[in-house]
Amino acid sequence: MQLEGIRVIDLTRILSGPFCTMFLADMGAEVIKIEGPNDGDPIRKQGDAKNGFSLYFASFNRNKRSITLNLRDPEGKQILTELLATADVVVNNYRPGVMDKMGFGREALTRIKPDLVSCNVTGFGLNGPYVDRPSFDFIAQAMSGFMSVNGEPDGAPMRAAPPISDLIAGAYAAMGILAALVRRSRTAKGEEVTTALTDSLTSMMAFLATNYFATGKLPVRTGNDHALASPYGLFEASNGQVAIAPSNDSFYFKLLSVLGLDHLRDCPELADNTLRFANRKRINGEINAVTRTQTIEHWIHVINEAGIPCGRVMNIQEVFDDPQTQHQQMRITIDHPRHGPLDVLGFPIKFSDEPCIVHRPPPDLGQDNEAVLSELGYSLERIQQLKANNVI
Amino acid sequence: MQLEGIRVIDLTRILSGPFCTMFLADMGAEVIKIEGPNDGDPIRKQGDAKNGFSLYFASFNRNKRSITLNLRDPEGKQILTELLATADVVVNNYRPGVMDKMGFGREALTRIKPDLVSCNVTGFGLNGPYVDRPSFDFIAQAMSGFMSVNGEPDGAPMRAAPPISDLIAGAYAAMGILAALVRRSRTAKGEEVTTALTDSLTSMMAFLATNYFATGKLPVRTGNDHALASPYGLFEASNGQVAIAPSNDSFYFKLLSVLGLDHLRDCPELADNTLRFANRKRINGEINAVTRTQTIEHWIHVINEAGIPCGRVMNIQEVFDDPQTQHQQMRITIDHPRHGPLDVLGFPIKFSDEPCIVHRPPPDLGQDNEAVLSELGYSLERIQQLKANNVI
Repeated sequence: MQLEGIRVIDLTRILSGPFCTMFLADMGAEVIKIEGPNDGDPIRKQGDAKNGFSLYFASFNRNKRSITLNLRDPEGKQILTELLATADVVVNNYRPGVMDKMGFGREALTRIKPDLVSCNVTGFGLNGPYVDRPSFDFIAQAMSGFMSVNGEPDGAPMRAAPPISDLIAGAYAAMGILAALVRRSRTAKGEEVTTALTDSLTSMMAFLATNYFATGKLPVRTGNDHALASPYGLFEASNGQVAIAPSNDSFYFKLLSVLGLDHLRDCPELADNTLRFANRKRINGEINAVTRTQTIEHWIHVINEAGIPCGRVMNIQEVFDDPQTQHQQMRITIDHPRHGPLDVLGFPIKFSDEPCIVHRPPPDLGQDNEAVLSELGYSLERIQQLKANNVI
Repeated sequence: MQLEGIRVIDLTRILSGPFCTMFLADMGAEVIKIEGPNDGDPIRKQGDAKNGFSLYFASFNRNKRSITLNLRDPEGKQILTELLATADVVVNNYRPGVMDKMGFGREALTRIKPDLVSCNVTGFGLNGPYVDRPSFDFIAQAMSGFMSVNGEPDGAPMRAAPPISDLIAGAYAAMGILAALVRRSRTAKGEEVTTALTDSLTSMMAFLATNYFATGKLPVRTGNDHALASPYGLFEASNGQVAIAPSNDSFYFKLLSVLGLDHLRDCPELADNTLRFANRKRINGEINAVTRTQTIEHWIHVINEAGIPCGRVMNIQEVFDDPQTQHQQMRITIDHPRHGPLDVLGFPIKFSDEPCIVHRPPPDLGQDNEAVLSELGYSLERIQQLKANNVI
């Protein structure tokens, strides 16, 4: 697999960090998840469980090993040091400075393993005026500008339901780690990678930010209407709504043909996107008058056949019942040796030669304590002592 | 930089593909953007311009070279073949099969450059029942489940304003390419990487998907309220709203103390998250009664001091005026030799040793034709012929 032979020490918990290390694990890295001896990652107790196992935890932590380690204990720190000496990557999502206080700041890490790639997924970055603030997805959605543009034109600023700032910051962290590994393969040097929840979502403001940079004008909430393109959005079919997204004149003219609206081609009020944008009500009315006469299924078929993107708004059940989602294996079943079948989200990155697979089921808390410590040379007796002393 | 010495041939346009290659370029790869001889990437003409240059295009295409190439012309194909022979990576966001028809399917690519990493950012994946459908961000938002959970509880399914499925698919593509490069450094083998707009957003459904897998129950839209945690959301200050996100009991008890609501600690109706979730109106009312007595600024200060995530909903102007956003340099100015200063989004991945920088301003269409073709050994006379023949 892509990351065969790469060992990752994973100090992360909850969401952003575990999402980062999930990608590394899915692509074949050996990820050793380090959890507190008593409760472990709080996500183990969140979300709905199947067969006694949280599927939320399962989805973010498949393919990882789990060991417990008390990092406040000197022996726990010693074991972490020994593990780091064998590692290629270490990831944490503590607040900035916590690793330093624990004795594992960047300099210490470099002493332990000169070419180590380290990564910190943060709320606001490694320093700056908000460095000591705690963060959480909702706050990043509020402070990134995302909420200000998401929602109905006449409604309130609206968060996205999934924790997208956590997820994007985690995905960017995986990307940064891989880039640092590419550099290491050339230079034999490690590096520290940092991402931040707020920056990550801000980086996705795309034209909403750049148009503001160009004009100084604030973007407004436009609901399901596109801020730049028209027609575009949800239209009425006889049995529900259908999403249609012609993105330029060529698509627009094709749409007119499919709908039998060719007489609008020369309509001066609708001649280009700017005019159609100003006359959105008019063009949407013309389209709805036609689309209302047939079913969703009809329009999805004929509009896509004409080369224009068209689909339906699917709920979560419809998504996972959909033949394309199933073809892409975006829901996969892990056969867990102790918890039976567990369903989790599939792999969004597809590789031709060595596809992502489930090579380890999501771990029970500390299930790999003996195996990992034995690899470091600890005797069974010593391991039992560490357990008795609540070090592991 | 991380990707020094990596050469990327970039056949992408619009958004998802250019976002992928932007990351590679920002991390130091040499990205040669190939555009049609006459109009180039349509994004050049979209979004608001500054000094005659689209900042939308500038943000997604900084750090890239641009050459024009007519890929329908045999000579254009020959030049692409010669370029690919010098490349490490090739990226396209054509529909599946287009590269094959052009003579650049995976097998052909491997013949040209045995260890080439190739990547296709698609709408629905490389094959399957929807393989021939066109796609577009809005359709992916509709078909991923995202819209079904985004929005007001009593409102319509709602798209996100930024084109997030394009952006996530592009970021995943960059991640997959980097993983394939890590593998290549070990095995000397190339690979084909594919991502899809719909899969990418589906992969971010997190607990909304896994809870459905566990229970068979559909998630519902909850607006700004969290589907699992309470209290959580926007609360009333004397001069506006403030976002507060205590994520567990420990944070909740701290919040009660900060607000002078310690008497609620033992309230049996609010004893745990499940009860507070059921009695959201009660706990939100108690909190609002206190938060209404002071300003946003007051609460952001004291609540963060207590270690509880808290912030304000910022519009795009406030985001880029914010001292932390400025500290993180999430808006950067590129001094373009021909177009003057151009403002674009900053780099969301920070590296300690070799940070992302602007090493090339966003390119004018075909500005690097002579330089790139000269590097391939073409004479100035031959280049002028190619131009006269509309090959470049």
